[in-house]
Amino acid sequence: MTTTSEPPTTTLAVPTAAPRTATQDRRNEPARGASTASDGPRVNVAELEHLLLGRWKEVRSNARRLVAEREEIWKIDGISKEEHRERTLETMKFMARDEHGQVWRAFPERLGGNDDAGGNLVGCEELFVADPSLQIKSGVQWGLFAAAILHLGTEEQQDRLLPGAMDLSVPGAFAMTETGHGSDVASVGTTATYDPGTEEFVINTPFRGAWKQYLGNAARHGVAATVFAQLITNGVNHGVHCFYVPIRDPETLEFLPGVGGEDDGHKGGLNGIDNGKLHFTDVRIPRRDLLARYGEVAADGTYTSSIDSPGRRFFTMLGALVQGRVTLDGSASVAAKVGLAIATKYADERRQFAAGDGQEEITLLDYAMHRKRLLPRIAETYAISFAHEELLELFDGVFSGATDTPENREDLETTAAALKATSTWFAMDTLQTCRQACGGAGYLSENRFTSMRADLDVYTTFEGDNHILLQLAAKRLVGDHGKRLARAAKSPAGMAGIVAGRLKDTLLHKAPLRKLGQNVADGGGARAASNLLDARTQRALLQERVDGLVNSVAMGLRPALGTKDPAKAQEIFDDNQVELITSSIAWAELFRWDAFTKALDEIEDVGTRAIMTTVRDVYGLTVIERNLDWYLVGGRLSVSRAKAVTTTIHHLLKQIRPHAVDLVDAFGYGPRHLRAPIADGSERLRQDEARQYYRDLAASGKAPRSEKSLRKTGAKA
Amino acid sequence: MTTTSEPPTTTLAVPTAAPRTATQDRRNEPARGASTASDGPRVNVAELEHLLLGRWKEVRSNARRLVAEREEIWKIDGISKEEHRERTLETMKFMARDEHGQVWRAFPERLGGNDDAGGNLVGCEELFVADPSLQIKSGVQWGLFAAAILHLGTEEQQDRLLPGAMDLSVPGAFAMTETGHGSDVASVGTTATYDPGTEEFVINTPFRGAWKQYLGNAARHGVAATVFAQLITNGVNHGVHCFYVPIRDPETLEFLPGVGGEDDGHKGGLNGIDNGKLHFTDVRIPRRDLLARYGEVAADGTYTSSIDSPGRRFFTMLGALVQGRVTLDGSASVAAKVGLAIATKYADERRQFAAGDGQEEITLLDYAMHRKRLLPRIAETYAISFAHEELLELFDGVFSGATDTPENREDLETTAAALKATSTWFAMDTLQTCRQACGGAGYLSENRFTSMRADLDVYTTFEGDNHILLQLAAKRLVGDHGKRLARAAKSPAGMAGIVAGRLKDTLLHKAPLRKLGQNVADGGGARAASNLLDARTQRALLQERVDGLVNSVAMGLRPALGTKDPAKAQEIFDDNQVELITSSIAWAELFRWDAFTKALDEIEDVGTRAIMTTVRDVYGLTVIERNLDWYLVGGRLSVSRAKAVTTTIHHLLKQIRPHAVDLVDAFGYGPRHLRAPIADGSERLRQDEARQYYRDLAASGKAPRSEKSLRKTGAKA
Repeated sequence: MTTTSEPPTTTLAVPTAAPRTATQDRRNEPARGASTASDGPRVNVAELEHLLLGRWKEVRSNARRLVAEREEIWKIDGISKEEHRERTLETMKFMARDEHGQVWRAFPERLGGNDDAGGNLVGCEELFVADPSLQIKSGVQWGLFAAAILHLGTEEQQDRLLPGAMDLSVPGAFAMTETGHGSDVASVGTTATYDPGTEEFVINTPFRGAWKQYLGNAARHGVAATVFAQLITNGVNHGVHCFYVPIRDPETLEFLPGVGGEDDGHKGGLNGIDNGKLHFTDVRIPRRDLLARYGEVAADGTYTSSIDSPGRRFFTMLGALVQGRVTLDGSASVAAKVGLAIATKYADERRQFAAGDGQEEITLLDYAMHRKRLLPRIAETYAISFAHEELLELFDGVFSGATDTPENREDLETTAAALKATSTWFAMDTLQTCRQACGGAGYLSENRFTSMRADLDVYTTFEGDNHILLQLAAKRLVGDHGKRLARAAKSPAGMAGIVAGRLKDTLLHKAPLRKLGQNVADGGGARAASNLLDARTQRALLQERVDGLVNSVAMGLRPALGTKDPAKAQEIFDDNQVELITSSIAWAELFRWDAFTKALDEIEDVGTRAIMTTVRDVYGLTVIERNLDWYLVGGRLSVSRAKAVTTTIHHLLKQIRPHAVDLVDAFGYGPRHLRAPIADGSERLRQDEARQYYRDLAASGKAPRSEKSLRKTGAKA
Repeated sequence: MTTTSEPPTTTLAVPTAAPRTATQDRRNEPARGASTASDGPRVNVAELEHLLLGRWKEVRSNARRLVAEREEIWKIDGISKEEHRERTLETMKFMARDEHGQVWRAFPERLGGNDDAGGNLVGCEELFVADPSLQIKSGVQWGLFAAAILHLGTEEQQDRLLPGAMDLSVPGAFAMTETGHGSDVASVGTTATYDPGTEEFVINTPFRGAWKQYLGNAARHGVAATVFAQLITNGVNHGVHCFYVPIRDPETLEFLPGVGGEDDGHKGGLNGIDNGKLHFTDVRIPRRDLLARYGEVAADGTYTSSIDSPGRRFFTMLGALVQGRVTLDGSASVAAKVGLAIATKYADERRQFAAGDGQEEITLLDYAMHRKRLLPRIAETYAISFAHEELLELFDGVFSGATDTPENREDLETTAAALKATSTWFAMDTLQTCRQACGGAGYLSENRFTSMRADLDVYTTFEGDNHILLQLAAKRLVGDHGKRLARAAKSPAGMAGIVAGRLKDTLLHKAPLRKLGQNVADGGGARAASNLLDARTQRALLQERVDGLVNSVAMGLRPALGTKDPAKAQEIFDDNQVELITSSIAWAELFRWDAFTKALDEIEDVGTRAIMTTVRDVYGLTVIERNLDWYLVGGRLSVSRAKAVTTTIHHLLKQIRPHAVDLVDAFGYGPRHLRAPIADGSERLRQDEARQYYRDLAASGKAPRSEKSLRKTGAKA
């Protein structure tokens, strides 16, 4: 910043940023402008903020406090990737040294951790607010590299390999993805062939497409890697397993013999992480460094596994890595909250265009289009946040062992896949909407949107491409539907249902999939209910869409079961793929509506509950509005009720407009989290100053008359 | 890039990039893979490419050749903003010195230009492919700063001030936007008060919100600025005028007395431009430096103008600047073409997942979801490109003087506003879709998507925020509708139409707005036609939507005319704003469909025309599909025909899939324009190498058996 001449007016008194919580911030604030509802219900921001903090309140608050206090860990935009990489590593060293309570939480108590699976993710999610590169490079180190040792290794391997991974003396890469195979991990080309003569595995990358690719820590800092490769012993390929492989000399950081790689260079974001490629030529590692929890090789090369089926074994190993998806769902929620808080505070203060000559200019949030752009996104962010909390509980139940059943593991994977895919997309669109809603100011890096968005971009394709994840989740939905059909077909009533093409069976959704069916009004359904603001109506409409889509896809895919021709089967799949993917989006929307509705019960303050019920209605109707064609085509909404959806949303948005700033304050991020000059109150001061200038000018009698008004009154200009 | 160990296989022979046109590239290419249509029509790529080049073929080809030949003007990702800024300035100096045929084209012949308004924009559009910062910093210098002198100055002022602006000896800022006022230019706070004592204007920034903001060249390189300020003389404010104001010492680049400013710092993109703020305290400029084409001040302070109405004068001055919007529409088309060419070539080669055990993996474009993501965007890009060509013609007609009528000027502004808004959004979404469609590879800067998208982002809000532009265009549509209503009300038949709530009048759209009505099947309409592939059906559906929306908004806004209460009027506007904005989106969609359909007539090759007709159908039906709820609510499509829209698109996409690469090749960008490693053919080589490896392995008899297959056959693993 250079100012070579004094500004023409006194410098504005911009409120000094201090590490306060949003709630604390609000206490000293003056009443808001014209649109503040002085009568009627108000949001109890503190209560709502507390509710949003969820089960791991303390962990989340501590992580936020760390971010607010430690300016030195905040992202700096515009520095070189080299500088950003070193800075991120230094921050991680600081974390490992002084804040390992934050980053070791998931590890066993005997090694200095807390055995706290859920809390660990919560802490990681909040690091997004400091610097997404820090979050993801930490995620690579502790959430992937070390987590692979934790979840795929034996206790002996944990004791031997985890300490270095935990204290960062061994920075590590997680070498799963290959240039030729991203989401299709089962097909990776890298091989680990057992040599009984030396009791070693020989790691090889047999062709260019099998190079490991996009790996954090691979380009520069990684000293070891957990490498996924086809395990071959005694002439048999036992499928993909994970191996602990040293890759660099810890002193010189030179590659070890047989290891090579390339730097991925500059990326669309996350340039604090040194992503790169790795390849292996006859790299030998001792037998004991196959991470052996789910499969091991004896000295003579005999393979044994506690899981008989190679398919189930593969999915069990990959399932251990679901935590990445859970964390990304939470991070998307964090990103949307920070973005919406900034854009909403600005829109509440910024004025542009007057309703008429001599009128005051209007705040952006008092324009219908602007409300429609921002407020439904606030509502959806609440829905995403409440749903994420349920996902965290499910994850913690499975990974703490408290509720670790095969069925819960499957539910966890399905839920994580559907939620991660839809929330990362939502957060991306939200940040872009916020950026545009703030015009040129939104494009400056100092106001955060473009910076957060650039980093978040890759969340939509890593830890599973969103389309692939949705397809994965949808296959589960359709599979469950198939089982249910098979059962139903055994009874005449069930058969009748199948013939009628629709099933009322509520067995589709099992816990948590199952429980989705519980609240449906028996025998009710959308057409019977007339009030769009009736929760039962909203739920029935959302549920009908899930059932309708799943049923339609199941029917569409059915002929594929009867064919032995792979080309024909592929064609049938192709004809149904788009609807298949759509069905799990619909399922995620329903899941979130349920989570939101359940959360309403926990709000004690009557006014807050009333406002939040309206916010929930905005979410429900917004989902219905964006799928309005589906409801009309299926005859599930009449033309007049379909029209009412849009007008109802318009009226609800007017109702919540006075509470918009309260609603984003309750997200819980203070000025040192938002760190955006357009959201620090200076816009209001500028607006006030400008209006005061014109009022003073008018009062002075020295204001120029306008040619326009002179012409109107017939005077000569 | 560091490779410290040799790759395990021979380095792949990647085709060397050479400056060839896309057509030339194709000639030596082998026939494409499994999905290439060997029978049936093929695209004549050369003819289609030629058609797309449009009226300014030579200018466009020359600009593309310049980009391909001059590697030193290509964007480098990851350099510091300081380095990028200096590099961009150096490139501009090179252009001004050696390539001024490119950048002076719009200026008068007497000053070294070509008086070629249309061609000038074409050349500027293509600079996007080299580096968007170069395009926009050039646009600031020659398209805004110099163009303000050209369009708002007298001949004397042009002769005196243009040469320095043209040859870049005077880098200039275009100081219109203020911190407090972006799109609402009429309300800027900066004042220029005439002092008859010294025959000078005194420029002042009276409060912080009146600082000029986001100005290219303001932070570092600008030596002068064209400053928009309220012209006050003899106690009367004559509204916003433009002034030529020196701001920095050309030698030291220090601000002149009374001038100050700040650097805008790092931005979401376009970091090769030194955007910044400017403010003025009693800065005096001579009377002759008011750019005086539309208003001047005599020595004694008397104001005169050739345009009586202050409102019309203001819009005339601003209208001179429409070329920015036209250029951005063209740039959006360029960005979408480059992005889709890269993503489509990759999707044609990249394989992932097999249809079943032992099957070959499938190319991405052979998945329905992937086709649905990319191919309709190729179709829409053609529509945008053909429509842009019409916009260029309209612009050139007005600015060359050939067809410069008030009505054409108004049409130009409306069309530019609606097209720029919708095409920049489209291009942004397209680049993001392409990035995700390429997974992790799409996130690397080397593959261009994230880099182009970051730069393009601000195109959605500069030169007019997209929502404001759409509202501007829509007000024109509704205004025309109002006049038509007033006329119709004079006849009983017309009154009956009004009462019936819908008007069949085709007067709504005048040239080019007007001509949109010409092709409507008389008395036809969508409901009568049954075939969605019938062009008349598509057109009638698109036209009905424009008419329906405009009519609905006009009816909704009507009560505002009868009220004197500004608050009430504002509320009525508020209730209709979203639909108002939607109506000009619908109008742009129709305009593009017409342009595409008209272009079909110019295709001589029968096969190409057949395929392009299908592409047009994809565009038309895609627009209808995304507004399906509107058609269903209005009863304009039956449920069964609405369903047919989606299934028809699915089948059309299968039909054009074999031509996908031809369709993007015809965009006319060769390897030195695309510059993306994932689109240079190496992916195909990698895929072939991997498949060959497995074939050789199988043939060698040394391939490990898989545990999975052994279990199936009952053998012991």
